[in-house]
Amino acid sequence: LTHTFHPPPIVPARHSAQDIALHTQLQRTIDFKTKPQGALGQLEALALQLGCIQQSSKITFNTPQMVVFAGDHGITVEGVSAFPQAVTQQMVANMLAGGAAVNVFARQHGFAVTVVDAGVAAQLPAHNDAHSHAHPLLLQHKIALGTRNACVTTAMTPSQAAQAVQAGMDVVRSLPGNVLALGEMGIGNTSSAALVFALLARLPVEDVAGRGTGLDDVQMQGKLAALRKAQALHANASIGDNAPMNVLTAVGGFEIAMMTGAMLQAASDRRVVLIDGFIASAAALVACKLSPQAKDYMVFCHIGAEHGHRALLAHLGAQPLLGLGLRLGEGTGALLAWPLLISAALFVQQMASFESAGVAQKTS
Amino acid sequence: LTHTFHPPPIVPARHSAQDIALHTQLQRTIDFKTKPQGALGQLEALALQLGCIQQSSKITFNTPQMVVFAGDHGITVEGVSAFPQAVTQQMVANMLAGGAAVNVFARQHGFAVTVVDAGVAAQLPAHNDAHSHAHPLLLQHKIALGTRNACVTTAMTPSQAAQAVQAGMDVVRSLPGNVLALGEMGIGNTSSAALVFALLARLPVEDVAGRGTGLDDVQMQGKLAALRKAQALHANASIGDNAPMNVLTAVGGFEIAMMTGAMLQAASDRRVVLIDGFIASAAALVACKLSPQAKDYMVFCHIGAEHGHRALLAHLGAQPLLGLGLRLGEGTGALLAWPLLISAALFVQQMASFESAGVAQKTS
Repeated sequence: LTHTFHPPPIVPARHSAQDIALHTQLQRTIDFKTKPQGALGQLEALALQLGCIQQSSKITFNTPQMVVFAGDHGITVEGVSAFPQAVTQQMVANMLAGGAAVNVFARQHGFAVTVVDAGVAAQLPAHNDAHSHAHPLLLQHKIALGTRNACVTTAMTPSQAAQAVQAGMDVVRSLPGNVLALGEMGIGNTSSAALVFALLARLPVEDVAGRGTGLDDVQMQGKLAALRKAQALHANASIGDNAPMNVLTAVGGFEIAMMTGAMLQAASDRRVVLIDGFIASAAALVACKLSPQAKDYMVFCHIGAEHGHRALLAHLGAQPLLGLGLRLGEGTGALLAWPLLISAALFVQQMASFESAGVAQKTS
Repeated sequence: LTHTFHPPPIVPARHSAQDIALHTQLQRTIDFKTKPQGALGQLEALALQLGCIQQSSKITFNTPQMVVFAGDHGITVEGVSAFPQAVTQQMVANMLAGGAAVNVFARQHGFAVTVVDAGVAAQLPAHNDAHSHAHPLLLQHKIALGTRNACVTTAMTPSQAAQAVQAGMDVVRSLPGNVLALGEMGIGNTSSAALVFALLARLPVEDVAGRGTGLDDVQMQGKLAALRKAQALHANASIGDNAPMNVLTAVGGFEIAMMTGAMLQAASDRRVVLIDGFIASAAALVACKLSPQAKDYMVFCHIGAEHGHRALLAHLGAQPLLGLGLRLGEGTGALLAWPLLISAALFVQQMASFESAGVAQKTS
C-alpha cells in the first residue's frame, strides 16, 4: 500500500529551441572572454548551467534562501550515532539563536535562514516571548516525533512520506528568491541517507556507509550491523516504478523526504538548487529518480568526508565544486560554495572579450 | 658569479611560548564549537593557521591586496606557448582597464589590484591622459624587456635576479593591509615555472611540465624538447647553498623572482600570503628554499589543471583549498578561495560553543 506521488512539472533547463540557442551563445561568450578556452575550469560549466536555468546570459541572484530541515530517526536506538538524539533539538535551538555554523555562513553570504521542524523527537520550545509565538525562523511541519526504527519496520507510513514530500514543496512555495540552499539536522541521518542510496542504487549498504559525526571502530561495526539488517528487511522497496517513494517510506527521514520535495518544487520554479553533503545528496538522488530533469537545476556544492558521498555523487554524475573534507551538514558546504556561483555570474557579465580588449588569440 | 641574497627576517608563525599557548587555546576553541570535532575539515586547519599568523584568536583582515606581476620570457622563441608573446602586454592593458578575470574577482571580494611591470617585452603605454602619467594601477619595475632564452644562456644575470627579488619586496613594503594575494601574467611562464621546480626538486622537467594555456600534442613535444635542453644546460644551478637564487637566475622569470621577493616580505610582515596556481607555487617554492618558515604564512588556494601542480604542492607539503581545474593564473584561484578564509575567521568568532548553546557532546 503506497501513495503514488506526482512530482510538480519540471522542464529540462535546456529544452526549447530558444534554450538551445542561448546555450550556444553563452558557450561562445565564455569562449571569447580574455582567457584560454576552459581556463576557468568548473566555473565555466557552472556559468553555462546557471544561464540555462535562468534562460538568460545575464545571471542574477535574488533573496537566496537557506532552509534547514530537522528530523529525528528511530534507528538511533541501534546506536548508529556518536551523539545522543537530543542533539537534534538542541542544534535546532542553536540555529534559531544564530549560533550554528550554518548561521555564520548564511550571514556571511546574505542568505535568509529558515529552520523546518520536519519531525524532531520533541516539542520544540515556542519563541521566548509573552505570547509563546513560534520562533520567526522556525516553520512547523512536524510529521511525527521522529521516524520509526527502520531495522524493525518502515521508517514512515506511506502517507507520512507523501505528506513530508508535500510539506517540502509547500515550504519552498512560501519562500521568495531564485536560489534555494538546503541543509539538514538529524542525529542518525547518515544512516538513513546510506540506506536510501544503497537501496536505490542496489549497493551493499556497508559499501556506502561512513562514520557520520565520528564513530570509532567498534561503534562503526554496530552501525553497519544495523544498516545491513535494515537493508535486508526493505530489499523489496527498490523494486518497481514506485521505488523512490517506497525507499523513502522504508528507510528515509522526514527531513530527507522534505528536502526531496523542496528540491522538486525549486526545480519546478527554475530556482538554482544548492546541494550540500551526503544527506542532501541522498535527497537529491530521490528527487532525480522521481524527476530526472530536476538535476539540471542542482549545483553539487561539495564532496564531504562521509565515506559514501563519492559514490553517491558518481552515481548522480555530479561534479562537486568544493572538497574541503567537511562532515557537518546543516547546509554549510552549500553556503561555502556560494561565492563561486557569484564568480561564475560575474565573469560572464564583466570580463572583456578578446575583441573588446584587443588581445590576440591562440595561434593554431 | 652569483649574488648572495639575504631574505628579510621571518619569524615562524608559531614560535614563542605565547604563540604555542595561543595555538592550544585556538585548537580548544575550535574543538568546542557546536559541531563534531574536525567537521569543518580544512577550514579548521585554516583558522588555526590564520590565528597563528595574526597571533590572535580574533582573525581580522584589512585592505587585502592583489598584486599581479607581469613579465616576458625569452624561451617563448622556442614555441613553448600557444599564445604569442604580445599577449602579455595586451593582458596587462586589459588588467589596467579592469576587464581581466582577476579584476572581476578582485572587485567581487574587495581586493585592491596593482599590476607590476616586472619585465614585459614592450614599453607599456602611459596612462591615457594629457600628461602621460603612468596608469594608477601600474607599478613600473621593469628589469629588462623580457628574460633571455634559457635554452641558450641564463634567463637573467645574477644581478637582475637579485634586483627582481628586491623589487618584489619593495612592492609589498609600499602596500597596506595584512593580506597579500599574488598573481602573474607572462606568456611562457609555465615553462619557466616547470624548470624552476624541476631544478630545485631535481626531477626530470618532462615529469612536471604541462600544456600551459592549451598546447596540442605536437606543440607539447616541442615544449618538452626545449625544457629538457634548458634543464640539461642549467643542471648545475641546483647545486650548493645558493641554489634558489642560481635557479631563478638560470631559468626563472622576472615575475617569478618578484613574486618570490613579495612573498618573503609579506611573510616578514606577518601578512597572510595567498598562493595561486602553478607559477605562483613555483615562486613559493623558491621563497621556501630561501626561508622555510615563509611557508607558515602561505595559504595554498587551489590545485590547478597544469600537470606539474600536484607534484609541486606535494613537494611543498601543501594542501590546497580549491580544485576547480583552473589554468588561468593572474591570481584568480587565490581570489576564488578568499571567501573560505573569511569563513574560517567567522566561524571561530561567531559560532556558539557546546557549553554556551547547551548542546550535548559526543558520547564516548
